[in-house]
Amino acid sequence: MILLIPAGVALIYREEAAFLAFLQIALPTGIAGAVLFWLTRASGLTLSNHDGFLVVTLSWVTVAALGALPFFLTGAIPSYTDAFFETMSGFTTTGATILTDIEVLPRSLLFWRSFTHWLGGMGIIVLTVAIFPLLGFKGLQLVRAEAPGPSVDKLTHKITHSAKILWLIYIALSALETVLLLAAGMDLFDSLTHTFGTMATGGFSPRNASVAAYNSLAVDTIITVFMVLAGVNFVLYYSVITGRFRTVLRDTELKVYLGIFAVATAITTVALHGETYRSWGESLRYAAFQTASILTTTGYATADYLHWPGVAMTVIFLLMFVGGCAGSTGGGMKVVRLTALFKQGINEMSYLLHPRGVFSPHMNGAPLKKTMLLGITGFFFLYFFLLLLTTLVVSLSGASLMTSFSTALATLGNIGPGFETIGPTGNYAAFPPAIKWFLSAIMLIGRLEVFTVLILLTPRYWRK
Amino acid sequence: MILLIPAGVALIYREEAAFLAFLQIALPTGIAGAVLFWLTRASGLTLSNHDGFLVVTLSWVTVAALGALPFFLTGAIPSYTDAFFETMSGFTTTGATILTDIEVLPRSLLFWRSFTHWLGGMGIIVLTVAIFPLLGFKGLQLVRAEAPGPSVDKLTHKITHSAKILWLIYIALSALETVLLLAAGMDLFDSLTHTFGTMATGGFSPRNASVAAYNSLAVDTIITVFMVLAGVNFVLYYSVITGRFRTVLRDTELKVYLGIFAVATAITTVALHGETYRSWGESLRYAAFQTASILTTTGYATADYLHWPGVAMTVIFLLMFVGGCAGSTGGGMKVVRLTALFKQGINEMSYLLHPRGVFSPHMNGAPLKKTMLLGITGFFFLYFFLLLLTTLVVSLSGASLMTSFSTALATLGNIGPGFETIGPTGNYAAFPPAIKWFLSAIMLIGRLEVFTVLILLTPRYWRK
Repeated sequence: MILLIPAGVALIYREEAAFLAFLQIALPTGIAGAVLFWLTRASGLTLSNHDGFLVVTLSWVTVAALGALPFFLTGAIPSYTDAFFETMSGFTTTGATILTDIEVLPRSLLFWRSFTHWLGGMGIIVLTVAIFPLLGFKGLQLVRAEAPGPSVDKLTHKITHSAKILWLIYIALSALETVLLLAAGMDLFDSLTHTFGTMATGGFSPRNASVAAYNSLAVDTIITVFMVLAGVNFVLYYSVITGRFRTVLRDTELKVYLGIFAVATAITTVALHGETYRSWGESLRYAAFQTASILTTTGYATADYLHWPGVAMTVIFLLMFVGGCAGSTGGGMKVVRLTALFKQGINEMSYLLHPRGVFSPHMNGAPLKKTMLLGITGFFFLYFFLLLLTTLVVSLSGASLMTSFSTALATLGNIGPGFETIGPTGNYAAFPPAIKWFLSAIMLIGRLEVFTVLILLTPRYWRK
Repeated sequence: MILLIPAGVALIYREEAAFLAFLQIALPTGIAGAVLFWLTRASGLTLSNHDGFLVVTLSWVTVAALGALPFFLTGAIPSYTDAFFETMSGFTTTGATILTDIEVLPRSLLFWRSFTHWLGGMGIIVLTVAIFPLLGFKGLQLVRAEAPGPSVDKLTHKITHSAKILWLIYIALSALETVLLLAAGMDLFDSLTHTFGTMATGGFSPRNASVAAYNSLAVDTIITVFMVLAGVNFVLYYSVITGRFRTVLRDTELKVYLGIFAVATAITTVALHGETYRSWGESLRYAAFQTASILTTTGYATADYLHWPGVAMTVIFLLMFVGGCAGSTGGGMKVVRLTALFKQGINEMSYLLHPRGVFSPHMNGAPLKKTMLLGITGFFFLYFFLLLLTTLVVSLSGASLMTSFSTALATLGNIGPGFETIGPTGNYAAFPPAIKWFLSAIMLIGRLEVFTVLILLTPRYWRK
């Protein structure tokens, strides 16, 4: 059904081929979607942990496989590998593109391309609040994670309720951004597609020059603010609506996240001033946009940081290791995990000083359990391991060290752009097909919090 | 007293200025050393954890501060900052140099420069087997760590005994390498200095071109083998001597360490063949030397990997994240820690599949305790955090991204060379003084397993 929306866009812009392609796919996809929906409903929340991992992974693979068809069948992207990569990049809200000229694509396809971001972002919200806690993931919601209610029915109800509220917040923020972009002078098409890319922290733009194409202070400011908003835990917006301001103000992750953004922007602004831009205003404008874009794993660009001074480039590089907040649409390792691990590092020193003492790192006023910290440790190390492995695999294609390493960071962290070949004005077109399939898998692994996909590769999973 | 050895070397080579400098320093150093020794003896092993961190850190700072004087007073290194950096680099077995022309230095100073490595290596062995376990460090010896004996006296005796045995092994291996290098045609001076650099996984060479200066297959082979040997847990040599071969063959860390070396060498050999070298033999020779050098954090060079193809450069880069085995003279994160964390990552997936199951990662046949894993987690994250922080600080000096990041890797991991400016044929001369002091601290922090130094920066440490 969702494919009827771009089909409508195709009609509006009188793009017949695209219209037919969307219809051709809408029918089977509708059926597949219905079956999936029925399966999930039927097994409902009594869905075992075991099946959950497979269902979630297959859902993303399926939508990417089917969602790639419009690009492929219209001939806009002649290679299915490329079409699949682009669509997986869309649904995982990565924003890595294989297109060398974006603007030649029909408007309906460009709309669909950006729309995959927005749908992916919706999917991530459900995953985080409804699916991952059921699958036993630790450290994503941390202290806020509510204990399972007395009955499964009540829990189900609660989770469905939470997901709906967060979706409403997502839709409301999207509507607000669209209206503001319209007010800033963008047309409806550009406003919508950029909203999709911003709110999902995706990064696909229908323009070759990304957001730089508009060269508008208003547009830059709006998108900077909404990228930062999209990287915040959506549960906090619910707290704001229900008047629990104290929860928001005391949220450790939010403070660290905004702190990182402020410090990164400050350093970058100082580094750019006098070197790249003459005025402080300009320096701040481009620094804030680019740091917000990379920290939140969006990937929009208003400047090519590859031409920035070393310090500014280094800040961008370091932000690639961070990512958004848990419960946001942002990717990466997530601020909450890094904060918890940092506190564990400090905590360990207390133990060394007083071996018989009892210490526990705290967050949001409550202690972090050992099992939770070990869960985060497992995640962190596998993420780190995949980062190095991906670097090696990409380098086998003949790519340079920096291209390989930043490709690993940019795909596993669902960021999009990186350094050298895949910089803000570059793209992923030059990689051989095998690498594109591999990177599609890495984008998915990163987006589904590593464990979901990797667990399917363990022999234990397939044992009865 | 130790300074009398280079003083002797100065006499032999008739270098009067250097001889006087060594004598000038030998006296106060001897006194300071005696005081330190007396302090340690007096407080003995009843030395509280609390003081231990300070004593260990101050010992390294003191020897570096005093050890820098011969370079400074003879005018061989006119800046004390540079002399201190060079000496700290020596005692921490890093091998990062600020010298642009090594061969102009008097022989006695070159001897002293290499000798600081060897002394530093000895210090590390005592730390690992005798001091760190007392300070409560987790994860360095892991399963092999013996439970404290019934009485402090017995424990003291046992530890002193272990340290002596490991020193003997260190000395024996050093003697063997020296003899082999002599047999390969090196003179005594070169054999000794290169043995110091190899066995301590340091990397200072008295030649500008490092080991490449000899262009000898025999020398390359001997040093490659001994670098790999120096990166092995020295406790395993003791097991071999006492006939416990099974312990050695079952040692998880050893297997992983040799596995990494083999795979890295294989990939690099294939990447170099046909690209950089014509024959398979040559490719293997240079691949094995460079991978051994970086994996063990030595830093000797027989080839400039900056001119290697992307894959080979990437392998070198990835090895910088690993390091030697615990209980070796190698630096870095250590193979045992990475193995434990990897197992924890896999273990976490078992938990997700069977939330009520009880799983525990095993190593060498025994389960890893939660407190130990959390200790390793604390270390790993602080190491990672320092890596990013150092990258940022170095970039503030105007260095490029890759120079900054690899400087962080090469100093915190006690490797020495990195990429771009600080590549195998480059050096640290161009950094401003503030950065050199900062990097000296980072080398020390890395060498003393992070916690020892960082703990002194916590307010809790100075509270009564």
